[in-house]
Amino acid sequence: MGYRSYAMAQQPRWLAEYISSLSFDKEICPYVLDVLAVHVRELERRGFIKSSEKLLKLIENFDCTKNYEGYEDIHEAIEYYLISASEEAKQINLGKSRNDQVATAIRLRTREEILDALEALYHFIKALYVKAKRYRETFFPTFTHLQPAQPGSAGLYFSSFAEELVDSFPLLVTALKLTDKCPLGAAAAAGSTVPLGREERCSELCFEDLALNALYATTSRAFALASASALLALSLPLTRFAEDMFIFSSPSFGLVKVPEDHAGTSSIMPHKRNPATLEVARAELSKLIGILTFQHALLKGLPSGYSLDLQQMTPSLWRAFSIFRKAALVLADFTEKLELDEAKAREFLRFPLQAADLAERLAVRGVPFRDAYARVARELKKTQDVNEIALKILGEPLGDPLLSRRAPGAPGNLEPVFEKIYEGIERILFVLQLRYKYQNCPNS
Amino acid sequence: MGYRSYAMAQQPRWLAEYISSLSFDKEICPYVLDVLAVHVRELERRGFIKSSEKLLKLIENFDCTKNYEGYEDIHEAIEYYLISASEEAKQINLGKSRNDQVATAIRLRTREEILDALEALYHFIKALYVKAKRYRETFFPTFTHLQPAQPGSAGLYFSSFAEELVDSFPLLVTALKLTDKCPLGAAAAAGSTVPLGREERCSELCFEDLALNALYATTSRAFALASASALLALSLPLTRFAEDMFIFSSPSFGLVKVPEDHAGTSSIMPHKRNPATLEVARAELSKLIGILTFQHALLKGLPSGYSLDLQQMTPSLWRAFSIFRKAALVLADFTEKLELDEAKAREFLRFPLQAADLAERLAVRGVPFRDAYARVARELKKTQDVNEIALKILGEPLGDPLLSRRAPGAPGNLEPVFEKIYEGIERILFVLQLRYKYQNCPNS
Amino acid sequence: MGYRSYAMAQQPRWLAEYISSLSFDKEICPYVLDVLAVHVRELERRGFIKSSEKLLKLIENFDCTKNYEGYEDIHEAIEYYLISASEEAKQINLGKSRNDQVATAIRLRTREEILDALEALYHFIKALYVKAKRYRETFFPTFTHLQPAQPGSAGLYFSSFAEELVDSFPLLVTALKLTDKCPLGAAAAAGSTVPLGREERCSELCFEDLALNALYATTSRAFALASASALLALSLPLTRFAEDMFIFSSPSFGLVKVPEDHAGTSSIMPHKRNPATLEVARAELSKLIGILTFQHALLKGLPSGYSLDLQQMTPSLWRAFSIFRKAALVLADFTEKLELDEAKAREFLRFPLQAADLAERLAVRGVPFRDAYARVARELKKTQDVNEIALKILGEPLGDPLLSRRAPGAPGNLEPVFEKIYEGIERILFVLQLRYKYQNCPNS
Amino acid sequence: MGYRSYAMAQQPRWLAEYISSLSFDKEICPYVLDVLAVHVRELERRGFIKSSEKLLKLIENFDCTKNYEGYEDIHEAIEYYLISASEEAKQINLGKSRNDQVATAIRLRTREEILDALEALYHFIKALYVKAKRYRETFFPTFTHLQPAQPGSAGLYFSSFAEELVDSFPLLVTALKLTDKCPLGAAAAAGSTVPLGREERCSELCFEDLALNALYATTSRAFALASASALLALSLPLTRFAEDMFIFSSPSFGLVKVPEDHAGTSSIMPHKRNPATLEVARAELSKLIGILTFQHALLKGLPSGYSLDLQQMTPSLWRAFSIFRKAALVLADFTEKLELDEAKAREFLRFPLQAADLAERLAVRGVPFRDAYARVARELKKTQDVNEIALKILGEPLGDPLLSRRAPGAPGNLEPVFEKIYEGIERILFVLQLRYKYQNCPNS
Repeated sequence: MGYRSYAMAQQPRWLAEYISSLSFDKEICPYVLDVLAVHVRELERRGFIKSSEKLLKLIENFDCTKNYEGYEDIHEAIEYYLISASEEAKQINLGKSRNDQVATAIRLRTREEILDALEALYHFIKALYVKAKRYRETFFPTFTHLQPAQPGSAGLYFSSFAEELVDSFPLLVTALKLTDKCPLGAAAAAGSTVPLGREERCSELCFEDLALNALYATTSRAFALASASALLALSLPLTRFAEDMFIFSSPSFGLVKVPEDHAGTSSIMPHKRNPATLEVARAELSKLIGILTFQHALLKGLPSGYSLDLQQMTPSLWRAFSIFRKAALVLADFTEKLELDEAKAREFLRFPLQAADLAERLAVRGVPFRDAYARVARELKKTQDVNEIALKILGEPLGDPLLSRRAPGAPGNLEPVFEKIYEGIERILFVLQLRYKYQNCPNS
Repeated sequence: MGYRSYAMAQQPRWLAEYISSLSFDKEICPYVLDVLAVHVRELERRGFIKSSEKLLKLIENFDCTKNYEGYEDIHEAIEYYLISASEEAKQINLGKSRNDQVATAIRLRTREEILDALEALYHFIKALYVKAKRYRETFFPTFTHLQPAQPGSAGLYFSSFAEELVDSFPLLVTALKLTDKCPLGAAAAAGSTVPLGREERCSELCFEDLALNALYATTSRAFALASASALLALSLPLTRFAEDMFIFSSPSFGLVKVPEDHAGTSSIMPHKRNPATLEVARAELSKLIGILTFQHALLKGLPSGYSLDLQQMTPSLWRAFSIFRKAALVLADFTEKLELDEAKAREFLRFPLQAADLAERLAVRGVPFRDAYARVARELKKTQDVNEIALKILGEPLGDPLLSRRAPGAPGNLEPVFEKIYEGIERILFVLQLRYKYQNCPNS
Repeated sequence: MGYRSYAMAQQPRWLAEYISSLSFDKEICPYVLDVLAVHVRELERRGFIKSSEKLLKLIENFDCTKNYEGYEDIHEAIEYYLISASEEAKQINLGKSRNDQVATAIRLRTREEILDALEALYHFIKALYVKAKRYRETFFPTFTHLQPAQPGSAGLYFSSFAEELVDSFPLLVTALKLTDKCPLGAAAAAGSTVPLGREERCSELCFEDLALNALYATTSRAFALASASALLALSLPLTRFAEDMFIFSSPSFGLVKVPEDHAGTSSIMPHKRNPATLEVARAELSKLIGILTFQHALLKGLPSGYSLDLQQMTPSLWRAFSIFRKAALVLADFTEKLELDEAKAREFLRFPLQAADLAERLAVRGVPFRDAYARVARELKKTQDVNEIALKILGEPLGDPLLSRRAPGAPGNLEPVFEKIYEGIERILFVLQLRYKYQNCPNS
Repeated sequence: MGYRSYAMAQQPRWLAEYISSLSFDKEICPYVLDVLAVHVRELERRGFIKSSEKLLKLIENFDCTKNYEGYEDIHEAIEYYLISASEEAKQINLGKSRNDQVATAIRLRTREEILDALEALYHFIKALYVKAKRYRETFFPTFTHLQPAQPGSAGLYFSSFAEELVDSFPLLVTALKLTDKCPLGAAAAAGSTVPLGREERCSELCFEDLALNALYATTSRAFALASASALLALSLPLTRFAEDMFIFSSPSFGLVKVPEDHAGTSSIMPHKRNPATLEVARAELSKLIGILTFQHALLKGLPSGYSLDLQQMTPSLWRAFSIFRKAALVLADFTEKLELDEAKAREFLRFPLQAADLAERLAVRGVPFRDAYARVARELKKTQDVNEIALKILGEPLGDPLLSRRAPGAPGNLEPVFEKIYEGIERILFVLQLRYKYQNCPNS
């Protein structure tokens, strides 16, 4: 390697590699080039370079996928490449620093990652929604404490996750808003003395707003933590769904058949069909709390101003997005392809799921509820057949276990849930339209 | 204890205590009573009890601070107390369960805690804002890698935290929106067969919306995780500020004098004045990641439907709010009372903070920036006095280190930062007006 | 409060309370008194006080349970109390500091807590061992991926946890060795100029060894992290056992009956019997990773030398010990009282648990194993009855599913496992004899 | 791909890749081959294959570095490769399963990783030891609360970390003992019906002991958690050292000069020399708590018996070892090359570090210590020059700040610390001799 722009050449190789970020700079390289492009145009507008044309072409042609071993980071590699081809590139770091450049590039990628996560979520919510509507009247037990509890429907079951996700996705939108603020122009920590426009460059990158204060702009990684936290919160319904399916597909429950595409086998037990993708999704999603814990441990104790520690932060963020996105798509596919065993579900009616219903019926007829409860409890010691008890003490059978639950959000009245989910899906699709905006950035 | 409503009396005491939630039910007791009050009024409206008057009075008089040892939880204690005084109370659990009742009470308290957290944040932001404006032209070094970096101002320094918090507080508002959804009426897991209004009871509790799906409403603790995550993300600027002050008040830096009220002493070293409150705040805030990790570990692996595990969740949430609120108030007070040592700050100009400025000046005059950088680097090997170098190679001194940085958000142009912070404070105050709404809930 | 030894009286109350450790100093108060007693005797031996008698009596009579509000910490309260009663007490902090005193007291308590944890573990291991021996020949399915896997026995099942714990308990013993090193005499950070014996005081406190280096002795909390980590690692079999029981006691599995003492009820569903203590134990044990994460976050970023942050460390450690101890005892009691449903267990033989056995039989007879596997897999598509297949292709039934597995550690050969567990129990009991040593400390 | 041993060919590619462990199986591939080799020899001894010779040669020649895309995991790839070359390989999975095979391979690698970690630790301890001895009489301030505290020496400083590590390294040795137990022969979960020796195969792999119980042997990952926990506990002194160096090398402290090899530069500030490797080491070590948190989250909620989740566990373990090893080596190199600024260190004597010494001198002369403390505190309000105060109230100067601290472990008496560290180093070297044993495994 010939010319070294600023890094020190004399470092032993193993130490140079230890501090190098090259191996993960690839992840932000295209965004770094975008930042450079708008910066070059601003340098031209302000007269600090004569013409941006050649530099812009060089930037466009820089190959992010190549191996730039020997450089401290991608920024040095790009600068060296540009200067080799054009003397004018020596101006390229005028009025900005790696600190604001990298913070800007990370935010550019993060806002796209957020959209990708939302899109994967959309697929999972839609799959749940379709399943919930299809099975809206199919009996499906509810459990509390993993014990059969009240009578439910598969519609209730699937839409419970969809509503939770529809209520929770704004966490990602808030993270997006926090991310969509431009640090470019903050330089190392306190801005530059060179008169360059911040708004001009930032609006070309389609940022909604500026991260104004130069020290804040270069120090803060709050936007990254907000994303990681949002993914973690949104992962909980995913994990719970995987857990449920893992249990419900165990032959003892037998409520759900694992789709062929999602099953694994055993190397010595010819009879096994394991819920393999569920297990991997569950395990992968466990990494999110590890990532958030790491990110917090990393940031804890750091003083204001950029420290090299921060360069270890973002690879974990990209991993978090990838984990979430893949798990959501896998679970969406699982949901689409799963089949219920409706007969097995109905077998759960052998448990006294309607015991509370019976107590309620007695109470509606005038027996104080707590007495009714005690009465039913006593009868249950003799038989677990609630309908038999109903006949005995009500003189009539209990009604349909689903239709008799008519409050909004109960199995007999899921319409408002479906409407809410539908509206939620529409809101997600609306946010996803930001893609068209980002795709044309930098604008020229 | 005489009458037992539903719990089992025969449990050995140590096991009964192990599963009892009584010790932390106090934290939600007033909210449980609010839920009961609206439920009783609905029971009356629907004709399931004759009159709510006596029950409402009894509920109002229930003493949450008393010791109810021997009961499984506060719900049982309240029911027993009410039934002892009025036979009609036996109806009180008609059409609801502990599962939806407790979920509702927790959300009621959480939305108030969020406002309290925002209020504490407001105090800290305001203190930072006042300090930043007062010291807007006071020289204060910036650091990167804890090495003196560029020239800054105390205005830049203090407002950097304020802007970060103003950008980040919407995380709490989003958590509030996710929390402000009413589970009441979801019963154990699948709603009730008793025709009671969900909207009626929920709107009396001033909820913005319903958590509709009964299984979602009783299972999900996403709202709690969202709060804990938001507090964690917001704690990072607080921790960093405490860290900075800890370092800056060390005599080697000497930039900040620890206010008398915040200093600690040594039992054997008469000369010590330790930044005691900062250290405690920093340590306390470290608990937030512990809490979030616990909450995630708790929820991981739980299937759908209420499990008793969930009862261990909320005490940690109240702790998170308390930790955050106190730390924010302590740091606000610290900020108000701290004094800068302006002379010590100016001493940092002995370091070549303006080295980049000089390279920029050369570049503006036509020396390609990377060459200018190399030139300055060479000169710095002879002297660290940048002004001396400037005289030599520019023929004139460098300008004012602050005023020469004029981009928005740089030390010479903080006005836009101040405006943004001011607007942020106004937005927080606007959210805080929700207090008046919540204080009148339940409405009767 | 009259005389103040060293703390500052002028602090506003809320800030004084914020930095006060009084609320959790109670936990180490008796140990602080032990440290003072040996220190006083050394002061007498070296002639720095005339007689230790009165002071020792005063120390003995100090009431750790009283409320000492207004003092910064228990150390100040004790000093004030002693000085009020005896002028000679003004010497009591000669040659030591709060820093080494508190580090010593914490280690004294920690080594006792470790023994308590080991004792609780002993009870759980013993209960598992008894159950394993009693049910050694009882059929009990094994699961992989929660799918029925190979034929096992309840003896195999229960002893699997016991062996894991017997292999793992040395983690606590190593933590004990790391803890059992005495910091007393290290003073604030660099020792004292007063000629006092370290060995003398430390051996009176029955420490195995010294934490020699004064800076290490006052700074390091490695011993606490080692304990918290050991508890976390040991908690995993406990959590897994609780999880298994939670699933196995669900009626769909029905393998285990939750003992009456451990069951919870529902407020509206009269039929419910929830595995309440298991759920609480599982939830409580989830706090351990939260505690370790907090402890690490707390320590991360702290420089050498005592900081007040450290005072927040130990309350979490006592909590970790308490959580572990209670959970182990609860699970021991659960194990003792649980009953298996042997008929339900045998029903699992309807699944082809012996499919691999059949393939192995074919392979032993000369069919290459992978071909045998494929053959059995094909047959299983026609019938799930492995014995039917065996009759068809072997011409004879498969043997006893347990006795045919004869390798050490397999269901047909558990004797070596039992022996290993028995020896492990003996080793734990041996360690527990340290109690007698510690109980007589300080020796006088 | 032609022959498929057991995995299902029909899975869509993206799902097959999702559950595939191929990308990280490379990490254990050589150990899997070792396991297969001993298994093949046992099959021959028992007569289940005619000759092991050809198979052993094939196993030896298997290329672990090749890309085996299309296979579910390395086990399937190896089996396919062997069977393609020799029909006899169809027997190779007789009497074992992937579950025990992979558990064995992981333990084989883990025990080597532990030795590597110990070796890296040895280098760091040695570097600290050498520095401590060289600078044993060099004045170096101690700090508490980052405030100058008592007089210390660089010998005290460097040996404080060395002693902590010497006291703590047994955590890794205990993890090694827990790891060094052989699961081979446990098969899927409950052993095999094929009469193969477990001891024979395990002793050829040089295991110390068996993980006997087949369910324990295949389920437990306690050994992995024990390693991760030990690394975390041992990382704390490393992180603290990096933190100290980060602060001490800041020009405001100026105590330590960052070695040229470890410094980084700025892209726009020509004067910067940042402690780059320290920052990266500090950041990397923060990943350890993230890894442990993930591992715990992964395991939490898993029932007994292998689940696919477990396959995500070990890659994180290898990462933990690599992070620790590299950081220890980097810090060892930093320690070897660092230089102290002894003049800067002595400048700290301008702070009243000997204030406590003075109070002690007064107390030794008969002024009760608490009164002496108060007296010195009063004088310090007039001057910070402790020697001036000493002359005034003692009539003579204070003695040498180091030599006057003579207790073992104080700056004037470090010999016992050095001896302890020396012995610790010898003990580590003794453990490292296990390498020779492991290198010859499997024995044939």
